Amino acid sequence: MRTTISIGSDLQIGGDNFVVMAGPCAVESEELLFAAADAVAAAGAGMLRGGAFKPRTSPQSFQGLGAEGLSLLTRAAQRTGLPVVTEVMDTRDVALVSEHAAMLQVGSRNMQNFPLLREVGRQSKPVLLKRGAAATIDELLLAAEYILQEGNPNVILCERGVRSFDPSTRYVLDLAAVPVLRERSPLPVIVDPSHGTGHARYVPPMARAAMVAGADGLLIEVHANPAIAKCDGQQALTPEIFAKLMVNLHALAPLCGRVICTGAAADSARATRTLRASDQDRPNTDQVHRPNSFDDEVIAP
Amino acid sequence: MRTTISIGSDLQIGGDNFVVMAGPCAVESEELLFAAADAVAAAGAGMLRGGAFKPRTSPQSFQGLGAEGLSLLTRAAQRTGLPVVTEVMDTRDVALVSEHAAMLQVGSRNMQNFPLLREVGRQSKPVLLKRGAAATIDELLLAAEYILQEGNPNVILCERGVRSFDPSTRYVLDLAAVPVLRERSPLPVIVDPSHGTGHARYVPPMARAAMVAGADGLLIEVHANPAIAKCDGQQALTPEIFAKLMVNLHALAPLCGRVICTGAAADSARATRTLRASDQDRPNTDQVHRPNSFDDEVIAP
Amino acid sequence: MRTTISIGSDLQIGGDNFVVMAGPCAVESEELLFAAADAVAAAGAGMLRGGAFKPRTSPQSFQGLGAEGLSLLTRAAQRTGLPVVTEVMDTRDVALVSEHAAMLQVGSRNMQNFPLLREVGRQSKPVLLKRGAAATIDELLLAAEYILQEGNPNVILCERGVRSFDPSTRYVLDLAAVPVLRERSPLPVIVDPSHGTGHARYVPPMARAAMVAGADGLLIEVHANPAIAKCDGQQALTPEIFAKLMVNLHALAPLCGRVICTGAAADSARATRTLRASDQDRPNTDQVHRPNSFDDEVIAP
Amino acid sequence: MRTTISIGSDLQIGGDNFVVMAGPCAVESEELLFAAADAVAAAGAGMLRGGAFKPRTSPQSFQGLGAEGLSLLTRAAQRTGLPVVTEVMDTRDVALVSEHAAMLQVGSRNMQNFPLLREVGRQSKPVLLKRGAAATIDELLLAAEYILQEGNPNVILCERGVRSFDPSTRYVLDLAAVPVLRERSPLPVIVDPSHGTGHARYVPPMARAAMVAGADGLLIEVHANPAIAKCDGQQALTPEIFAKLMVNLHALAPLCGRVICTGAAADSARATRTLRASDQDRPNTDQVHRPNSFDDEVIAP
Repeated sequence: MRTTISIGSDLQIGGDNFVVMAGPCAVESEELLFAAADAVAAAGAGMLRGGAFKPRTSPQSFQGLGAEGLSLLTRAAQRTGLPVVTEVMDTRDVALVSEHAAMLQVGSRNMQNFPLLREVGRQSKPVLLKRGAAATIDELLLAAEYILQEGNPNVILCERGVRSFDPSTRYVLDLAAVPVLRERSPLPVIVDPSHGTGHARYVPPMARAAMVAGADGLLIEVHANPAIAKCDGQQALTPEIFAKLMVNLHALAPLCGRVICTGAAADSARATRTLRASDQDRPNTDQVHRPNSFDDEVIAP
Repeated sequence: MRTTISIGSDLQIGGDNFVVMAGPCAVESEELLFAAADAVAAAGAGMLRGGAFKPRTSPQSFQGLGAEGLSLLTRAAQRTGLPVVTEVMDTRDVALVSEHAAMLQVGSRNMQNFPLLREVGRQSKPVLLKRGAAATIDELLLAAEYILQEGNPNVILCERGVRSFDPSTRYVLDLAAVPVLRERSPLPVIVDPSHGTGHARYVPPMARAAMVAGADGLLIEVHANPAIAKCDGQQALTPEIFAKLMVNLHALAPLCGRVICTGAAADSARATRTLRASDQDRPNTDQVHRPNSFDDEVIAP
Repeated sequence: MRTTISIGSDLQIGGDNFVVMAGPCAVESEELLFAAADAVAAAGAGMLRGGAFKPRTSPQSFQGLGAEGLSLLTRAAQRTGLPVVTEVMDTRDVALVSEHAAMLQVGSRNMQNFPLLREVGRQSKPVLLKRGAAATIDELLLAAEYILQEGNPNVILCERGVRSFDPSTRYVLDLAAVPVLRERSPLPVIVDPSHGTGHARYVPPMARAAMVAGADGLLIEVHANPAIAKCDGQQALTPEIFAKLMVNLHALAPLCGRVICTGAAADSARATRTLRASDQDRPNTDQVHRPNSFDDEVIAP
Repeated sequence: MRTTISIGSDLQIGGDNFVVMAGPCAVESEELLFAAADAVAAAGAGMLRGGAFKPRTSPQSFQGLGAEGLSLLTRAAQRTGLPVVTEVMDTRDVALVSEHAAMLQVGSRNMQNFPLLREVGRQSKPVLLKRGAAATIDELLLAAEYILQEGNPNVILCERGVRSFDPSTRYVLDLAAVPVLRERSPLPVIVDPSHGTGHARYVPPMARAAMVAGADGLLIEVHANPAIAKCDGQQALTPEIFAKLMVNLHALAPLCGRVICTGAAADSARATRTLRASDQDRPNTDQVHRPNSFDDEVIAP
């Protein structure tokens, strides 16, 4: 029996649901955030992502807007109806971030920051836990245990690429982690093809592949103008490419036995979107039986 | 403009074609080979795979039947109509293997066996070149250059997993290599999810993901009775699971703009198969426009 | 010009000094800590290591004694005269740990815990920064920048093995990181062969190799009774093996142009030790010229 | 009981012997080969290395002089008295290379070229088997089994770096493989710090560290003029740096219980060398007991 996790009052992750979390890598300004948020809402994303506290390899890089970024995210959430997922990096910030976000993200670099895991385990919002770049799948599950053990059962696991030797992609996206994680844990599993590949042009094929491999959702970077992004612009989709990708995902969803979910307040945005997507691409959310869905589970280990 | 490669007189790899190469890891006996060959033909495979010369980590492991195995493969090809792909490991065996096989495989361990690459470049059959377990994508393309430079333009590239630190899977299947290779080379790209994951139960999701990521085909291990296989039985699909996977692939193919190809002589086998697959899953091979196919190529780098 | 860092009032790291930091992985009890501390002091270690806050992959593993462990470390320092290095994992604990330790350790898992790096950069004690298991050398140097930028110039870098594919050792100890780091930074570089190999029997050869490769010191796990250790016992040296290793290091030190340093208050302990080491092994700490020392620096890049 | 292997009539590898094999990456011309051979002989190398058949990642790179290169190597061996080790890549070349070389090298890319392993197992010359860049230590030992099983007991194992994620060095030199291999096999173990680091300036510290870690020898690239080398010039030592390194190794050898060996016919060259090395650096080859040598073997697992 797989875990289903409620995000806010209207959205669920897990089960037959497929949730696309999209938005900019970092919150840079009201204008850029709102532009990205409006675009991903219009294209049918289920959640808005965006970093207020940014872990950056170099101290000279843009470090995020901090508390001001959280306020902008809250306003973007109100504007679009999309619940927000954003990263927390410091145990001392957990309460603050928890006030603004519908879901807290623990980033790849902090997967084994155990005090932070315990602290997000003691608050009430769901937690998105990203796999470390050199963490085994079992280490990811043990990191999740730190959160669960503190009383927070709502953990979503995220594959985002592991470190390897080939500079062709930023990381090697380990899509097989999806069926492995589904076998070992009932927790929902999502995939981040943006960090996993590091190049916008590889994101759509990997995003679609992730859905087909059994993921419960995606975490995708979208920027209103990637060329001017202060953070990871080369891996951000434009709103146009993201909208096309959403059409692809809607086409694949029925075959995967999935319903692509949006936040309840995003209804008007969704209405706009479905006008753009061709009819045959829409998921039939009423269907009970999905005879074409893939039934890997019948394969004995 | 992407390269299309003819295998024998009736099969093509590349372009809109999608070719599934399936069969046992090793040729073990006439009975087991024919059982696997019949099964994959009936399920709609396009080619038969099977190893007569086997590269094995330990000299104590089964090393393959050698020339006798080639003869059995030739008979299995005649029986099923499926062209055969089989590995060659020694420069001295290239002529012999080339007589029996429709396509020669250069295995992962020999990706940088340059005398072998040159030798297969001097014969006329197409060559399936597998990526080394620690080879970068550019090193794979340079290895292909060794073959091309000798005058053989018919090289198919194969992603089969790279070495990593997590024992959960045998290798990490680098599916992003598919769009990267498609970007850097016109040669067809296929994926081997059997070696790439090492566990039969992860093969179907990765096989489907590979198609969706843009692969031109798959190389899949199927054994009539995996429990008694002398080689890599834990990663071999049963005929039943393979047949289900083929149904899945047929469902996905139209969305990917693909036609799943079978050898011409496999018509009767295919007829059998399509009776088992539900009607709505069959690809419409007559369709000219595939409006739902994914158009990554529009994404500028 | 290389940086020399003072630890407490009597010990220096960098320059010609070679400092061995040794002690148990975790502080488990007064008895075991004191036994290990006495042993490493007697054998001529320069600092005492021991974890009060332990990062453990599983929440079910022993997590350290916390504040009580710090008190025990302080008493062990008073007892032996050895300054203490111990890990801090949480920004909220930095002030507390800084009161008890002569040097703060930021562990491998926290190398990119940027709030923690900033916090240890704002206090006055030197910081031992361990390389992440999948961090490049440049990423380690950028992590050090986070500390330096806050005003703390006293950072010691530590190579402790990187993640790789071979289960023969826990990590692959990247000893070439020593000359690479020395080339790119004036900060002292030490090596941890205990975590780097994960097996006590490989620690002595790698410890000696690290000195010869140019390291400014070592971080070595020593336990009074490894068989009963609650943490990483398989990689802890016994006091006897550690004492032998110290004799080896004293033999090598003159060739490397190094003086092995001990804390000032460890004089009586050192007197004991030198009685055990054979005369010809003792370093001549008075020598000014060391004609046999290796002069790699003359090799132009 | 460790294996000792005779190279020609006068040189032994294994036991207390330490053998330095040095020379250019590739045989390029008589002039350059002889200049390098004379230099390494004068500095006290035990064997001459040089590639006639070169495995190169790109077919556009210099591929070696082939049979002509073998003839030049034979003449360089006669000139200097140094036995030659050179690579063989093709089963069809084994007999030819075996005529010219005192030891055959199977390169990293061919570690699992099983027909080649069998073929070198059927001839009489010792074989230097290099670890594959992504091969586990156990896979290296199983590859050696292929040679041993054919009747050739004279295999020398070589660590030369494994593939990793950090571009700072060409590979990560896994020096812990030395004690691991010594534990698991009686075969001699040597280290190649030239390929293992890829940069000349890191070779001396890693060469010294390899000796101290327990290696039985070294494989080092030396070029008369690295700036004009057709192959891997950036990792070749100049004759001057190589001579300094030999002095370092002679200083370390007694501590390691080692005698640095040279070919018998290299006596006059050695006489020249020892005049240059300071007296205290020379090994005392008459000593029977070496009380300072490191005795790791006493450390129980």
